[in-house]
Amino acid sequence: MRQLQLVAFGEPSEVIELNTVSEPLLGQDDVLVSMEAAPINPSDFLLVRGMYGVRPAFPFSVGAEGVGRVTQTGSKVDVALQGKRVLILPTLEQGTWADQVVVPVRNLVPMSDEADPLQLSMIGINPVTAYLLLNRYVSLMPGDWIGQTAANSAMGQYIIALAKLAGVKTLNVVRREDAAEQVRQWGGDRVVQQGDNLHKDIEEALNGKKLSLVLDNVGGTPVGELAKSLKTGGSTVVYAVLSGQFPAISPKDLIYRDLSLHGFWLMNWIRNAPRTEIQEIYQKLGDLVADGSLYAAMEHVYPLEQFKEAFTRSLRSHRGGKILFQFGAH
Amino acid sequence: MRQLQLVAFGEPSEVIELNTVSEPLLGQDDVLVSMEAAPINPSDFLLVRGMYGVRPAFPFSVGAEGVGRVTQTGSKVDVALQGKRVLILPTLEQGTWADQVVVPVRNLVPMSDEADPLQLSMIGINPVTAYLLLNRYVSLMPGDWIGQTAANSAMGQYIIALAKLAGVKTLNVVRREDAAEQVRQWGGDRVVQQGDNLHKDIEEALNGKKLSLVLDNVGGTPVGELAKSLKTGGSTVVYAVLSGQFPAISPKDLIYRDLSLHGFWLMNWIRNAPRTEIQEIYQKLGDLVADGSLYAAMEHVYPLEQFKEAFTRSLRSHRGGKILFQFGAH
Repeated sequence: MRQLQLVAFGEPSEVIELNTVSEPLLGQDDVLVSMEAAPINPSDFLLVRGMYGVRPAFPFSVGAEGVGRVTQTGSKVDVALQGKRVLILPTLEQGTWADQVVVPVRNLVPMSDEADPLQLSMIGINPVTAYLLLNRYVSLMPGDWIGQTAANSAMGQYIIALAKLAGVKTLNVVRREDAAEQVRQWGGDRVVQQGDNLHKDIEEALNGKKLSLVLDNVGGTPVGELAKSLKTGGSTVVYAVLSGQFPAISPKDLIYRDLSLHGFWLMNWIRNAPRTEIQEIYQKLGDLVADGSLYAAMEHVYPLEQFKEAFTRSLRSHRGGKILFQFGAH
Repeated sequence: MRQLQLVAFGEPSEVIELNTVSEPLLGQDDVLVSMEAAPINPSDFLLVRGMYGVRPAFPFSVGAEGVGRVTQTGSKVDVALQGKRVLILPTLEQGTWADQVVVPVRNLVPMSDEADPLQLSMIGINPVTAYLLLNRYVSLMPGDWIGQTAANSAMGQYIIALAKLAGVKTLNVVRREDAAEQVRQWGGDRVVQQGDNLHKDIEEALNGKKLSLVLDNVGGTPVGELAKSLKTGGSTVVYAVLSGQFPAISPKDLIYRDLSLHGFWLMNWIRNAPRTEIQEIYQKLGDLVADGSLYAAMEHVYPLEQFKEAFTRSLRSHRGGKILFQFGAH
C-alpha cells in the first residue's frame, strides 16, 4: 500500500514522499480502510512546516481526515462493518493520504452510502469546527447576528451554511470584491469589504443590530473592528491566526463590555470530548452533507501520485475551492 | 450637607469642588445615610479624567463606595433600618464622598456594627471584584494554583486572602523587591520579581505545577508570561489595563491550548446580577472583614475638606496602602 510520508519539516513538495509500505498486521480493535477521498487542509501544511500544535516523529503518515470503506476487520471488531463507508476522525493517529489505512475502530464514524464521498471526506475538520464555534461559546437564537473574517474560506462557507440552518444571520468580512460576490452567493446576509473605514462599514451593514459572536481565523485588526460591534458579554473565538498577529481587540472594550476571547483547536475537543458526543456530532454533519445542506466548493481533485501538483495548487492564494485526493476504483 | 462634585473632566484637584448643597427630599424608597468612611480608588480617577466606562453629566457627585449609618427612611422603607450601618453599593447613582447621601434602599446592604468601618467601606469594589474573579471563570479546587500581576496592589492583597481561604495557591508577580517582601508578608505562596527571564522564573517557582487562572490589571507582557504556564483550557481575566497595552498572550498558546481571555468590569455585574446574589456576596464579604479574614493595608485617612491632600497622596506611585475619607463623629 502507498502512503504520503513526511520525512522532515519544510516545504511540502520537498519533505513529503510517496512510499510503498508493506501491509501492516491488524490489531484486534483495528480496521483496514480503503480510502475514497481525503482533502488537503491549511493545517496539514502547518504540521508539515513544523508550525502546528503537534510536532510528529519521522517518518509520519500525513493527511488528517477522509472517508473510505472498511475492507478488513480485527478479531474484536463487529464484522458488520465490512464494506461500510466510514469517516476517519482527525486524531493524527493515522495518515489519510494513502491507498489504505489501518485505523482503531474507535476513530471511525459510519457514514451514508448515498452522499458524495468527496463532500463527506471534508467534514472531519472544517464543518465540525464551524459547528463547535457556533455552539460552544454563546447560546445563539434565531435572528441573532454573528460576524466572521475571511468569510470566503472553506470554513467561512460552512459557518454561513450552519448559521443559516439555525436561523442565525451572518456579517462577513472579506478582502476582495470577487470574494464578496462569492460569499453573497453562499447566502451571507451582509458582506463588508475591508477598507479604511471597516468599523463604520460594519456598523452600517448591521443597521443598529449587535453581534453575539465573532469568529476569526486571521488575527490583527479586522477581528478587533468586528469586536467593537459585539453585545456586552459577547465572545470572540479565534481558530487560526493566519496573519500571525494577535487579535487586536481594544482592552477597554474587553473590560467595560465584558467581552471574552477564546482560542479553539479541534484536537483538544477530539482528545477530551466524550466519544459518544463526537460520534453524534459527526453523524449529524454527515446527514447534512447527504441532504445537500452542507457543501464546500471544490477546485480540483488529484490522484495520490500527483501530490506535488496538488500541493502547488493548494498553496495558491486565489483558489475557488478545496483541493482533494480521490482514490481510484478499488 | 457637603459633597465633592466633579465639574469637568481633568486632573482630580482641579475639577473636583467641595460644595454645600441643600438637603434633598427623600423619595418613598430612599434612605438618608450619614457617611462613616469612603475610600479613594484608581477607578475614581479614571472616571474623573473621562477615561472610565461611564462618562457622567456635570455636576456629578463623586465617590463610588463607602459605609455609613441610616439617619432617615422614606415612607416605604422599613423603619428598623434607622441607625443601622449600611454599605452603599457601587452603582455610581450616588457619590459617597459626602457627609450625607440619599440612597435608594435597594442599593444598600446592612453591615455588622462590630467591624472596622474603614475596612468595611472598602468591600464594595475590590473584595467583591477579587471574589468574582476567583469564582466566575474556572472552578478552583483546594491546591490549585493561580497567578496574578501587580500583586502588591490592594486588589492583590484581597486576591491572596480570598484564595488562601479557599485553599488555593498564589503565584504573584511584582516589579520591585520591597513589593515582593510586602506580598510575602500577606501570605503569597510564591513571589516572582519581573526581570529578563520572567517565564523561566515563573516556571521555577511553580516547580512543575500549572496555573488554572491568571488575573491581570496591567496588560502587556507579564500576563502573557503567566499565561504560558496555564493549563490547557485555562483562563486569563483582565480587570484593568494600567499599562494601556493589550495582554500579550501568544496567539498559538491561545489556540493550541484552548485558552480564554475575559474582561471583567464590576459595573456590569452590579447592573445585571440578581439583587439577592449581590446582597448575599456582600454580606459574606462583610462577615470576612468582621472576623479579620479580609483586610486591606491603609496608608492614611483624611477628612473630606482635605480632599486635595488626599488626592495628591492617592496619586503617588509608591504607597503602602489605601487612602480613605473618614467622616467626623455624628
